[in-house]
Amino acid sequence: MSVKPGLFISFEGGEGSGKSTQIRCLEKWFRNQGRDVVVTREPGGSPGAEEIRTLLLTGDPGRWDAVTEALLMFASRRDHVERTIRPALAEGKVVLCDRFADSSVAYQGYGHGLGADYIRNLWQLAIDGFKPDITLIFDLPIEIGLERAGARFANVSAAEDRFERMGLEFHQRLRDGFREIAAAEPERCCVVDALGDIDDVTARVIETVKNRIVGQGA
Amino acid sequence: MSVKPGLFISFEGGEGSGKSTQIRCLEKWFRNQGRDVVVTREPGGSPGAEEIRTLLLTGDPGRWDAVTEALLMFASRRDHVERTIRPALAEGKVVLCDRFADSSVAYQGYGHGLGADYIRNLWQLAIDGFKPDITLIFDLPIEIGLERAGARFANVSAAEDRFERMGLEFHQRLRDGFREIAAAEPERCCVVDALGDIDDVTARVIETVKNRIVGQGA
Repeated sequence: MSVKPGLFISFEGGEGSGKSTQIRCLEKWFRNQGRDVVVTREPGGSPGAEEIRTLLLTGDPGRWDAVTEALLMFASRRDHVERTIRPALAEGKVVLCDRFADSSVAYQGYGHGLGADYIRNLWQLAIDGFKPDITLIFDLPIEIGLERAGARFANVSAAEDRFERMGLEFHQRLRDGFREIAAAEPERCCVVDALGDIDDVTARVIETVKNRIVGQGA
Repeated sequence: MSVKPGLFISFEGGEGSGKSTQIRCLEKWFRNQGRDVVVTREPGGSPGAEEIRTLLLTGDPGRWDAVTEALLMFASRRDHVERTIRPALAEGKVVLCDRFADSSVAYQGYGHGLGADYIRNLWQLAIDGFKPDITLIFDLPIEIGLERAGARFANVSAAEDRFERMGLEFHQRLRDGFREIAAAEPERCCVVDALGDIDDVTARVIETVKNRIVGQGA
Protein backbone atom coordinates (compact mmCIF):
# COMPACT_ATOMS: atom_id res chain seq x y z
CA MET A 1 0.00 0.00 0.00
CA SER A 2 1.53 3.31 -1.04
CA VAL A 3 1.00 6.02 1.53
CA LYS A 4 1.04 9.66 0.47
CA PRO A 5 2.88 11.99 2.82
CA GLY A 6 0.82 14.46 4.82
CA LEU A 7 0.39 17.95 3.41
CA PHE A 8 -0.20 21.07 5.51
CA ILE A 9 -1.66 24.13 3.75
CA SER A 10 -2.53 27.36 5.56
CA PHE A 11 -4.85 30.08 4.28
CA GLU A 12 -3.95 33.63 5.23
CA GLY A 13 -5.13 37.15 4.47
CA GLY A 14 -7.14 40.06 5.78
CA GLU A 15 -10.85 40.28 6.50
CA GLY A 16 -13.20 39.43 3.64
CA SER A 17 -10.49 37.86 1.49
CA GLY A 18 -12.55 34.71 0.88
CA LYS A 19 -10.36 32.20 2.72
CA SER A 20 -13.23 30.12 4.13
CA THR A 21 -14.90 29.74 0.73
CA GLN A 22 -11.65 28.72 -0.93
CA ILE A 23 -10.86 26.19 1.80
CA ARG A 24 -14.13 24.40 1.01
CA CYS A 25 -13.31 24.42 -2.71
CA LEU A 26 -9.80 23.02 -2.16
CA GLU A 27 -11.14 20.44 0.30
CA LYS A 28 -13.50 19.18 -2.43
CA TRP A 29 -10.64 19.07 -4.96
CA PHE A 30 -8.44 16.98 -2.65
CA ARG A 31 -11.33 14.64 -1.75
CA ASN A 32 -11.97 14.08 -5.44
CA GLN A 33 -8.39 12.88 -5.63
CA GLY A 34 -9.07 10.35 -2.88
CA ARG A 35 -7.19 12.21 -0.15
CA ASP A 36 -8.27 12.34 3.48
CA VAL A 37 -8.69 16.01 4.38
CA VAL A 38 -8.83 17.71 7.79
CA VAL A 39 -10.25 21.24 7.70
CA THR A 40 -9.35 23.27 10.76
CA ARG A 41 -8.94 26.87 11.86
CA GLU A 42 -7.17 29.16 14.29
CA PRO A 43 -7.43 30.19 16.97
CA GLY A 44 -8.82 26.79 17.93
CA GLY A 45 -8.78 23.43 16.17
CA SER A 46 -8.38 21.15 19.22
CA PRO A 47 -10.49 20.97 22.40
CA GLY A 48 -7.93 22.88 24.50
CA ALA A 49 -7.23 25.42 21.77
CA GLU A 50 -10.97 26.06 21.39
CA GLU A 51 -11.15 26.95 25.09
CA ILE A 52 -8.31 29.43 24.62
CA ARG A 53 -10.15 30.77 21.54
CA THR A 54 -13.13 31.55 23.77
CA LEU A 55 -10.83 33.58 26.07
CA LEU A 56 -9.44 35.42 23.05
CA LEU A 57 -12.67 36.25 21.26
CA THR A 58 -15.12 37.03 24.07
CA GLY A 59 -15.23 39.97 26.48
CA ASP A 60 -14.00 43.51 25.90
CA PRO A 61 -11.88 43.99 22.76
CA GLY A 62 -9.14 45.59 24.91
CA ARG A 63 -9.11 42.95 27.64
CA TRP A 64 -5.69 41.59 26.53
CA ASP A 65 -2.72 43.66 25.44
CA ALA A 66 -0.94 42.68 22.21
CA VAL A 67 1.73 40.58 23.96
CA THR A 68 -0.75 38.63 26.09
CA GLU A 69 -2.83 38.08 22.95
CA ALA A 70 0.22 36.75 21.10
CA LEU A 71 1.08 34.41 24.00
CA LEU A 72 -2.48 33.09 24.12
CA MET A 73 -2.47 32.64 20.33
CA PHE A 74 0.73 30.58 20.51
CA ALA A 75 -0.53 28.58 23.50
CA SER A 76 -3.61 27.62 21.50
CA ARG A 77 -1.45 27.00 18.41
CA ARG A 78 0.85 24.66 20.36
CA ASP A 79 -2.13 22.59 21.46
CA HIS A 80 -3.58 22.63 17.93
CA VAL A 81 -0.29 21.51 16.36
CA GLU A 82 0.42 18.75 18.90
CA ARG A 83 -3.13 17.37 19.22
CA THR A 84 -4.61 17.89 15.73
CA ILE A 85 -2.18 18.89 12.98
CA ARG A 86 0.88 16.66 13.58
CA PRO A 87 -1.23 13.50 14.22
CA ALA A 88 -3.22 14.11 11.00
CA LEU A 89 -0.04 14.65 8.95
CA ALA A 90 1.48 11.49 10.44
CA GLU A 91 -1.53 9.60 9.02
CA GLY A 92 -0.87 11.05 5.55
CA LYS A 93 -3.81 13.44 5.62
CA VAL A 94 -4.12 16.84 3.97
CA VAL A 95 -4.59 19.57 6.61
CA LEU A 96 -6.24 22.79 5.42
CA CYS A 97 -6.01 25.48 8.10
CA ASP A 98 -7.84 28.83 8.16
CA ARG A 99 -5.07 31.07 9.57
CA PHE A 100 -1.84 29.88 11.19
CA ALA A 101 1.28 31.50 12.67
CA ASP A 102 1.64 34.03 9.82
CA SER A 103 -1.56 35.63 11.13
CA SER A 104 0.23 36.29 14.43
CA VAL A 105 3.13 37.85 12.51
CA ALA A 106 0.66 40.01 10.54
CA TYR A 107 -1.80 40.98 13.30
CA GLN A 108 0.35 41.26 16.43
CA GLY A 109 3.68 41.78 14.64
CA TYR A 110 2.79 44.27 11.88
CA GLY A 111 -0.72 45.41 12.87
CA HIS A 112 -0.18 46.00 16.60
CA GLY A 113 3.50 46.89 16.21
CA LEU A 114 5.24 44.11 18.18
CA GLY A 115 7.42 43.47 15.14
CA ALA A 116 7.78 40.42 12.92
CA ASP A 117 11.02 39.29 14.60
CA TYR A 118 9.38 39.30 18.02
CA ILE A 119 6.58 37.01 16.81
CA ARG A 120 9.03 34.75 14.95
CA ASN A 121 10.99 34.27 18.20
CA LEU A 122 7.78 33.24 19.92
CA TRP A 123 6.94 30.96 16.95
CA GLN A 124 10.30 29.23 17.45
CA LEU A 125 9.82 28.80 21.21
CA ALA A 126 6.19 27.69 21.05
CA ILE A 127 6.21 25.17 18.19
CA ASP A 128 9.90 24.86 17.23
CA GLY A 129 9.21 27.04 14.19
CA PHE A 130 6.90 24.37 12.71
CA LYS A 131 5.53 25.65 9.36
CA PRO A 132 2.97 24.77 6.71
CA ASP A 133 4.22 23.14 3.50
CA ILE A 134 2.27 25.74 1.51
CA THR A 135 0.82 29.06 2.65
CA LEU A 136 -1.72 30.79 0.40
CA ILE A 137 -2.00 34.50 1.15
CA PHE A 138 -5.24 35.95 -0.21
CA ASP A 139 -4.66 39.52 -1.23
CA LEU A 140 -7.07 42.26 -2.19
CA PRO A 141 -7.47 46.01 -1.63
CA ILE A 142 -8.45 46.58 1.98
CA GLU A 143 -11.52 48.68 1.17
CA ILE A 144 -12.96 45.79 -0.84
CA GLY A 145 -12.09 43.27 1.89
CA LEU A 146 -13.71 45.37 4.60
CA GLU A 147 -16.79 45.96 2.42
CA ARG A 148 -17.07 42.22 1.86
CA ALA A 149 -16.63 41.66 5.62
CA GLY A 150 -19.59 43.94 6.18
CA ALA A 151 -17.80 47.03 7.49
CA ARG A 152 -19.63 50.32 7.08
CA PHE A 153 -18.03 53.35 5.49
CA ALA A 154 -20.95 55.75 4.95
CA ASN A 155 -22.88 58.09 7.25
CA VAL A 156 -20.55 57.73 10.20
CA SER A 157 -20.09 60.41 12.84
CA ALA A 158 -16.76 62.22 13.24
CA ALA A 159 -15.67 59.93 16.10
CA GLU A 160 -16.62 56.81 14.18
CA ASP A 161 -14.91 58.22 11.10
CA ARG A 162 -11.69 58.63 13.09
CA PHE A 163 -12.03 55.06 14.30
CA GLU A 164 -12.67 53.82 10.78
CA ARG A 165 -9.57 55.64 9.56
CA MET A 166 -7.49 54.10 12.37
CA GLY A 167 -9.00 50.82 11.28
CA LEU A 168 -8.00 51.45 7.68
CA GLU A 169 -4.40 52.16 8.70
CA PHE A 170 -4.37 48.96 10.76
CA HIS A 171 -5.73 46.92 7.87
CA GLN A 172 -3.24 48.51 5.48
CA ARG A 173 -0.39 47.46 7.84
CA LEU A 174 -1.88 43.97 7.83
CA ARG A 175 -1.96 43.80 4.04
CA ASP A 176 1.58 45.16 3.73
CA GLY A 177 2.68 42.71 6.44
CA PHE A 178 1.25 39.71 4.63
CA ARG A 179 3.05 40.80 1.45
CA GLU A 180 6.35 41.11 3.34
CA ILE A 181 5.81 37.65 4.82
CA ALA A 182 5.29 36.25 1.33
CA ALA A 183 8.38 38.04 -0.01
CA ALA A 184 10.52 36.69 2.85
CA GLU A 185 9.60 33.04 2.20
CA PRO A 186 8.71 32.63 -1.48
CA GLU A 187 9.33 28.87 -1.41
CA ARG A 188 6.50 28.43 1.13
CA CYS A 189 4.20 31.41 0.60
CA CYS A 190 2.22 32.33 -2.45
CA VAL A 191 0.15 35.50 -2.85
CA VAL A 192 -3.22 34.71 -4.49
CA ASP A 193 -5.14 37.52 -6.16
CA ALA A 194 -8.47 37.34 -4.31
CA LEU A 195 -10.34 39.70 -6.66
CA GLY A 196 -12.89 38.33 -9.08
CA ASP A 197 -15.33 35.41 -9.23
CA ILE A 198 -15.09 32.62 -6.68
CA ASP A 199 -14.50 30.13 -9.50
CA ASP A 200 -11.66 32.20 -10.93
CA VAL A 201 -9.98 32.42 -7.54
CA THR A 202 -10.48 28.68 -6.99
CA ALA A 203 -8.82 27.99 -10.35
CA ARG A 204 -5.83 30.11 -9.24
CA VAL A 205 -5.69 28.27 -5.91
CA ILE A 206 -5.73 24.80 -7.48
CA GLU A 207 -3.15 25.80 -10.11
CA THR A 208 -0.88 27.18 -7.36
CA VAL A 209 -1.25 24.12 -5.16
CA LYS A 210 -0.62 21.72 -8.07
CA ASN A 211 2.56 23.57 -9.02
CA ARG A 212 3.78 23.67 -5.43
CA ILE A 213 3.05 19.99 -4.80
CA VAL A 214 5.02 19.04 -7.93
CA GLY A 215 7.78 21.48 -6.95
CA GLN A 216 8.04 20.10 -3.42
CA GLY A 217 7.58 16.46 -4.47
CA ALA A 218 4.72 16.14 -1.94
CA MET B 1 5.18 64.23 51.20
CA SER B 2 7.86 61.60 50.89
CA VAL B 3 6.80 58.68 48.76
CA LYS B 4 8.43 55.30 49.31
CA PRO B 5 9.28 53.41 46.14
CA GLY B 6 7.28 50.29 45.36
CA LEU B 7 8.70 46.96 46.46
CA PHE B 8 8.00 43.64 44.75
CA ILE B 9 8.68 40.46 46.76
CA SER B 10 7.93 36.97 45.43
CA PHE B 11 7.56 33.82 47.51
CA GLU B 12 8.78 30.60 45.93
CA GLY B 13 9.29 26.99 46.91
CA GLY B 14 7.84 23.50 46.64
CA GLU B 15 4.57 22.15 48.02
CA GLY B 16 4.00 22.56 51.75
CA SER B 17 6.85 25.01 52.22
CA GLY B 18 4.64 27.47 54.13
CA LYS B 19 4.66 30.34 51.60
CA SER B 20 1.02 31.38 52.16
CA THR B 21 1.43 31.56 55.95
CA GLN B 22 4.60 33.62 55.67
CA ILE B 23 3.02 36.01 53.18
CA ARG B 24 0.34 36.86 55.75
CA CYS B 25 3.01 37.40 58.42
CA LEU B 26 5.09 39.68 56.19
CA GLU B 27 1.96 41.54 55.06
CA LYS B 28 1.21 42.32 58.74
CA TRP B 29 4.81 43.46 59.33
CA PHE B 30 4.70 45.88 56.39
CA ARG B 31 1.26 47.21 57.39
CA ASN B 32 2.58 47.88 60.90
CA GLN B 33 5.18 50.07 59.22
CA GLY B 34 2.45 52.05 57.50
CA ARG B 35 2.98 50.58 54.04
CA ASP B 36 0.19 49.82 51.58
CA VAL B 37 0.42 46.13 50.72
CA VAL B 38 -1.04 44.18 47.80
CA VAL B 39 -1.10 40.41 48.33
CA THR B 40 -1.44 38.48 45.10
CA ARG B 41 -0.66 35.06 43.66
CA GLU B 42 0.07 33.16 40.46
CA PRO B 43 -1.28 31.88 38.26
CA GLY B 44 -3.87 34.63 38.51
CA GLY B 45 -3.88 38.00 40.24
CA SER B 46 -5.85 40.02 37.68
CA PRO B 47 -9.28 39.31 36.17
CA GLY B 48 -7.85 38.03 32.87
CA ALA B 49 -5.09 36.05 34.56
CA GLU B 50 -7.65 34.41 36.85
CA GLU B 51 -9.54 33.20 33.76
CA ILE B 52 -6.32 31.69 32.40
CA ARG B 53 -5.75 30.14 35.86
CA THR B 54 -9.06 28.34 35.53
CA LEU B 55 -7.91 26.87 32.20
CA LEU B 56 -4.63 25.78 33.81
CA LEU B 57 -5.99 24.22 36.98
CA THR B 58 -9.23 22.53 35.89
CA GLY B 59 -9.77 19.48 33.68
CA ASP B 60 -7.46 16.50 33.19
CA PRO B 61 -3.95 16.94 34.62
CA GLY B 62 -2.50 16.01 31.20
CA ARG B 63 -4.70 18.32 29.14
CA TRP B 64 -1.80 20.68 28.35
CA ASP B 65 1.75 19.65 27.46
CA ALA B 66 4.62 21.37 29.29
CA VAL B 67 5.19 23.99 26.56
CA THR B 68 1.50 24.95 26.30
CA GLU B 69 1.39 25.15 30.09
CA ALA B 70 4.44 27.47 30.11
CA LEU B 71 2.88 29.69 27.41
CA LEU B 72 -0.40 29.93 29.35
CA MET B 73 1.53 30.68 32.56
CA PHE B 74 3.37 33.55 30.87
CA ALA B 75 0.19 34.84 29.21
CA SER B 76 -1.44 35.03 32.64
CA ARG B 77 1.76 36.53 34.11
CA ARG B 78 1.85 39.23 31.42
CA ASP B 79 -1.69 40.27 32.30
CA HIS B 80 -0.93 40.12 36.04
CA VAL B 81 2.21 42.26 35.66
CA GLU B 82 0.60 44.88 33.40
CA ARG B 83 -2.77 45.14 35.15
CA THR B 84 -1.92 44.53 38.84
CA ILE B 85 1.78 44.52 39.75
CA ARG B 86 3.23 47.47 37.79
CA PRO B 87 0.32 49.82 38.67
CA ALA B 88 0.66 48.94 42.39
CA LEU B 89 4.43 49.50 42.34
CA ALA B 90 3.92 52.84 40.55
CA GLU B 91 1.76 53.90 43.52
CA GLY B 92 4.56 53.01 45.96
CA LYS B 93 2.88 49.86 47.28
CA VAL B 94 4.51 46.67 48.53
CA VAL B 95 3.49 43.72 46.34
CA LEU B 96 3.76 40.27 47.94
CA CYS B 97 3.27 37.55 45.34
CA ASP B 98 2.75 33.83 45.99
CA ARG B 99 4.84 32.36 43.13
CA PHE B 100 6.17 34.28 40.11
CA ALA B 101 8.31 33.50 37.06
CA ASP B 102 10.85 31.44 39.03
CA SER B 103 8.06 28.89 39.52
CA SER B 104 7.90 28.46 35.73
CA VAL B 105 11.68 27.99 35.63
CA ALA B 106 11.41 25.40 38.44
CA TYR B 107 8.25 23.52 37.38
CA GLN B 108 8.34 23.59 33.56
CA GLY B 109 12.10 24.22 33.23
CA TYR B 110 13.61 21.82 35.80
CA GLY B 111 10.60 19.65 36.76
CA HIS B 112 9.19 18.91 33.30
CA GLY B 113 12.56 19.16 31.56
CA LEU B 114 12.09 22.14 29.22
CA GLY B 115 15.29 23.64 30.63
CA ALA B 116 15.88 26.84 32.58
CA ASP B 117 17.21 28.71 29.52
CA TYR B 118 14.08 27.93 27.54
CA ILE B 119 11.86 29.41 30.26
CA ARG B 120 14.14 32.43 30.70
CA ASN B 121 13.81 33.17 26.95
CA LEU B 122 10.05 33.09 27.33
CA TRP B 123 10.32 35.27 30.46
CA GLN B 124 12.22 37.84 28.39
CA LEU B 125 9.68 37.79 25.52
CA ALA B 126 6.57 37.82 27.72
CA ILE B 127 7.40 40.49 30.31
CA ASP B 128 10.76 41.92 29.16
CA GLY B 129 12.48 39.90 31.89
CA PHE B 130 10.68 41.91 34.61
CA LYS B 131 11.76 40.58 38.04
CA PRO B 132 10.91 40.92 41.73
CA ASP B 133 13.17 43.11 43.89
CA ILE B 134 13.45 40.24 46.37
CA THR B 135 12.64 36.56 45.91
CA LEU B 136 12.33 34.37 49.01
CA ILE B 137 12.79 30.69 48.22
CA PHE B 138 11.35 28.50 50.98
CA ASP B 139 13.40 25.34 51.22
CA LEU B 140 12.80 22.11 53.09
CA PRO B 141 13.28 18.37 52.50
CA ILE B 142 10.72 17.23 49.94
CA GLU B 143 9.34 14.42 52.12
CA ILE B 144 8.45 16.93 54.82
CA GLY B 145 6.95 19.36 52.30
CA LEU B 146 4.81 16.65 50.72
CA GLU B 147 3.71 15.37 54.14
CA ARG B 148 2.72 18.91 55.08
CA ALA B 149 0.88 19.24 51.75
CA GLY B 150 -1.09 16.14 52.64
CA ALA B 151 0.52 13.57 50.37
CA ARG B 152 0.24 9.93 51.44
CA PHE B 153 3.22 7.62 51.62
CA ALA B 154 1.87 4.53 53.40
CA ASN B 155 -0.22 1.55 52.31
CA VAL B 156 -0.15 2.34 48.61
CA SER B 157 -0.49 -0.27 45.86
CA ALA B 158 2.42 -1.07 43.55
CA ALA B 159 1.10 1.23 40.80
CA GLU B 160 0.53 4.06 43.25
CA ASP B 161 3.97 3.45 44.72
CA ARG B 162 5.54 3.82 41.28
CA PHE B 163 3.60 7.06 40.81
CA GLU B 164 4.70 8.32 44.21
CA ARG B 165 8.32 7.58 43.37
CA MET B 166 7.98 9.45 40.05
CA GLY B 167 6.46 12.23 42.09
CA LEU B 168 9.38 12.23 44.50
CA GLU B 169 11.88 12.50 41.65
CA PHE B 170 9.88 15.38 40.20
CA HIS B 171 9.79 17.19 43.53
CA GLN B 172 13.50 16.59 44.04
CA ARG B 173 14.19 18.21 40.62
CA LEU B 174 12.01 21.11 41.74
CA ARG B 175 13.94 21.57 44.99
CA ASP B 176 17.30 21.33 43.21
CA GLY B 177 16.01 23.73 40.56
CA PHE B 178 14.98 26.35 43.10
CA ARG B 179 18.42 26.11 44.70
CA GLU B 180 20.13 26.59 41.31
CA ILE B 181 17.89 29.60 40.67
CA ALA B 182 18.98 31.10 44.00
CA ALA B 183 22.63 30.39 43.29
CA ALA B 184 22.41 32.04 39.86
CA GLU B 185 20.98 35.32 41.23
CA PRO B 186 22.15 35.77 44.82
CA GLU B 187 21.52 39.53 44.75
CA ARG B 188 17.78 38.93 44.18
CA CYS B 189 17.09 35.46 45.60
CA CYS B 190 17.44 34.27 49.17
CA VAL B 191 16.92 30.69 50.32
CA VAL B 192 14.92 30.63 53.58
CA ASP B 193 15.12 27.53 55.77
CA ALA B 194 11.42 26.58 56.04
CA LEU B 195 11.90 24.00 58.82
CA GLY B 196 10.79 24.79 62.35
CA ASP B 197 8.08 26.89 64.01
CA ILE B 198 6.10 29.40 62.00
CA ASP B 199 7.38 32.20 64.26
CA ASP B 200 10.99 31.15 63.74
CA VAL B 201 10.55 31.14 59.98
CA THR B 202 8.79 34.52 60.12
CA ALA B 203 11.72 35.93 62.09
CA ARG B 204 14.09 34.68 59.36
CA VAL B 205 11.89 36.17 56.64
CA ILE B 206 11.71 39.60 58.30
CA GLU B 207 15.45 39.63 59.01
CA THR B 208 16.16 38.72 55.38
CA VAL B 209 13.80 41.35 53.98
CA LYS B 210 15.18 44.07 56.30
CA ASN B 211 18.74 43.29 55.23
CA ARG B 212 17.81 43.26 51.55
CA ILE B 213 15.84 46.50 51.73
CA VAL B 214 18.81 48.22 53.38
CA GLY B 215 21.18 46.64 50.87
CA GLN B 216 19.05 47.70 47.89
CA GLY B 217 18.23 51.13 49.32
CA ALA B 218 14.54 50.42 48.76
